[in-house]
Amino acid sequence: MAAVKGSIYRELPDALIVDVSHEISPFDIAEAAYILKNAYRNFPKGSIHIVGVDTLINPLKKPIAALIDDHFFIGADNGILSLICAEITPKELVEITIPQTHEETVFPTRDIFVPVACHLARGGKLAVIGQKLKTFKELSFLKPVVKEGKTINGTVIYIDNYGNVMTNISDKLFREVSKKRGCRIWFRNHEFTEVYSSYTQIVKDFQNEESDYGKGMALFGSSGFLEIAIYKSNPQTVGSASTLYGLKKGDVVNVEFE
Amino acid sequence: MAAVKGSIYRELPDALIVDVSHEISPFDIAEAAYILKNAYRNFPKGSIHIVGVDTLINPLKKPIAALIDDHFFIGADNGILSLICAEITPKELVEITIPQTHEETVFPTRDIFVPVACHLARGGKLAVIGQKLKTFKELSFLKPVVKEGKTINGTVIYIDNYGNVMTNISDKLFREVSKKRGCRIWFRNHEFTEVYSSYTQIVKDFQNEESDYGKGMALFGSSGFLEIAIYKSNPQTVGSASTLYGLKKGDVVNVEFE
Amino acid sequence: MAAVKGSIYRELPDALIVDVSHEISPFDIAEAAYILKNAYRNFPKGSIHIVGVDTLINPLKKPIAALIDDHFFIGADNGILSLICAEITPKELVEITIPQTHEETVFPTRDIFVPVACHLARGGKLAVIGQKLKTFKELSFLKPVVKEGKTINGTVIYIDNYGNVMTNISDKLFREVSKKRGCRIWFRNHEFTEVYSSYTQIVKDFQNEESDYGKGMALFGSSGFLEIAIYKSNPQTVGSASTLYGLKKGDVVNVEFE
Repeated sequence: MAAVKGSIYRELPDALIVDVSHEISPFDIAEAAYILKNAYRNFPKGSIHIVGVDTLINPLKKPIAALIDDHFFIGADNGILSLICAEITPKELVEITIPQTHEETVFPTRDIFVPVACHLARGGKLAVIGQKLKTFKELSFLKPVVKEGKTINGTVIYIDNYGNVMTNISDKLFREVSKKRGCRIWFRNHEFTEVYSSYTQIVKDFQNEESDYGKGMALFGSSGFLEIAIYKSNPQTVGSASTLYGLKKGDVVNVEFE
Repeated sequence: MAAVKGSIYRELPDALIVDVSHEISPFDIAEAAYILKNAYRNFPKGSIHIVGVDTLINPLKKPIAALIDDHFFIGADNGILSLICAEITPKELVEITIPQTHEETVFPTRDIFVPVACHLARGGKLAVIGQKLKTFKELSFLKPVVKEGKTINGTVIYIDNYGNVMTNISDKLFREVSKKRGCRIWFRNHEFTEVYSSYTQIVKDFQNEESDYGKGMALFGSSGFLEIAIYKSNPQTVGSASTLYGLKKGDVVNVEFE
Repeated sequence: MAAVKGSIYRELPDALIVDVSHEISPFDIAEAAYILKNAYRNFPKGSIHIVGVDTLINPLKKPIAALIDDHFFIGADNGILSLICAEITPKELVEITIPQTHEETVFPTRDIFVPVACHLARGGKLAVIGQKLKTFKELSFLKPVVKEGKTINGTVIYIDNYGNVMTNISDKLFREVSKKRGCRIWFRNHEFTEVYSSYTQIVKDFQNEESDYGKGMALFGSSGFLEIAIYKSNPQTVGSASTLYGLKKGDVVNVEFE
């Protein structure tokens, strides 16, 4: 958002600002958490990530800042860090106490998060602008449920631009529970028994690649989360995993190991 | 737009360029005026704002440049400055005469506004590239009508990403007419008698915040304009002020003081 | 995409990165080719263009890099250069052999194209990261068909934000075949016999400009391709060339000279 960028440049004319996404659905913590987790790792260590989603401060939702995996995150304590912190513990975590405009502001991203980001960008410390926190809000719906070491019940948390369906089942969890057993992945009335590691693995013969267009698959792609995809999909034309399987955010996707 | 950025960098490799919005509806001066007014103030003084909306030059719509509130604005004289200038008089205002390609170009933003912006960015003066103007086009539909010091008839000029409805009634005008009297805000068959100054004011108990989801309100938010909003709205799912009250751009919103 | 930008900044903290478009339809080579052709020329010579469309590498679709018209292009050999190279021959063309992760990666833009772009940005040579190629993939559907020096059968390759319809018939080809003869432009059951060089040429009297709103026309605009447009169109409200004439991507537009 331009107002946020403007207010950063006003304080730090040499700031390097990157838009991660303008297209988070309003108040969609799961989608934002997914996109944040996949984006931050590609940035240099020491980067400062301002999370302008569901930001309004109230007595139960304080502004927080954290140092996780050598990256800084600034936002409201709304659970958005749950996905990143599923596997990594924050090295530092504070409730922001400076600036102190918290509950009055209608624009916390500009009025609280930006000044904190500029403080960090100038080399300032987290301890100076906040007081140590032990825990942050965890969102249980972002975590898959493992039953009897045998099944994983996951949830759809994001649908990408190609209509591919992303779940909250991480590659790491999958491997831990799997112990190299075969598995069945099912949702609604569909199932897959194979798990790919790239889209193109589904193609047998690239001379006849078009015969594979529209084929469905389950894979762990670049995000590191289990994904239900259609080869060469387009939600506007030929259809996509989301439209063809009727999968939407919040739907359940299951894995059952042999 | 990439072509515009490319042509700036070609002249000024060190330029700092920020996209304010790519999502203005075609030729929607009201929307563009609203977004511009809310964005520019957050940028450092001396910033140069290129306004690439409804830009085609004709004998009645000249290219202009202005210095207003210590910011530069460059665009077509199509009325887009009306909202900013409702409360602030331009310090300088010129019709752009250099470069002279005006009516032939099919891409005035690139061919006229960018060279002027680069001239200003290098410290050049407005007087050098244009001739002084006394007035610019004012759009009366961007101005609310005040009747008998008692009522204000405003108009919806923008619907934001959350479906919140922004009118052209500024906080300043409201306070001038109000003289601290109570008021009734109405439109179609809805009314509000309270005016909030933040979204969260509607919440009585944050332990039960969800019971307030979906409640409607009138407020002066971060934009400084009267806004009709729904707490935690989402036009795609639970609905929004725009969808639930049936308010769209151009609709009338009224304020009546006691 | 943020992941791509992050990985560039990780290697080159001072890189200057510009988003050309985030809104290419999935796998739409024609649209991407059109946008790329119109954008690149506005950037400084020596610019490096990463083309992240239809990028998955396979034995028949290698990663390539080219120096064309003093600009570098990096992408998959999927035909996207056809439009740029319709009139300009590449000065250098290589199949990328370093880095060598090609077929395994699920994210070639980040894992192959970004390292190559950083190599070029540091002044590295194309010859170092690839082996010389003689040809790249040409897409015949991006080329109009000329018959008997008298007719041109073109195709709609892009619909812009205003709903204006862009064909693959270039100004250059039009002039070559035309030899200054008059022409008839037709598609479906519509025809034009005049070709404009700007939108505003259709207006006879700017005092009554509104009477020209909604008029259709054929023109060569800023893109240099034959375009079917509606004066002051808006696909969401008053309609546009695309909606009113029922023209969509892939449809045929013909020119017949006298």
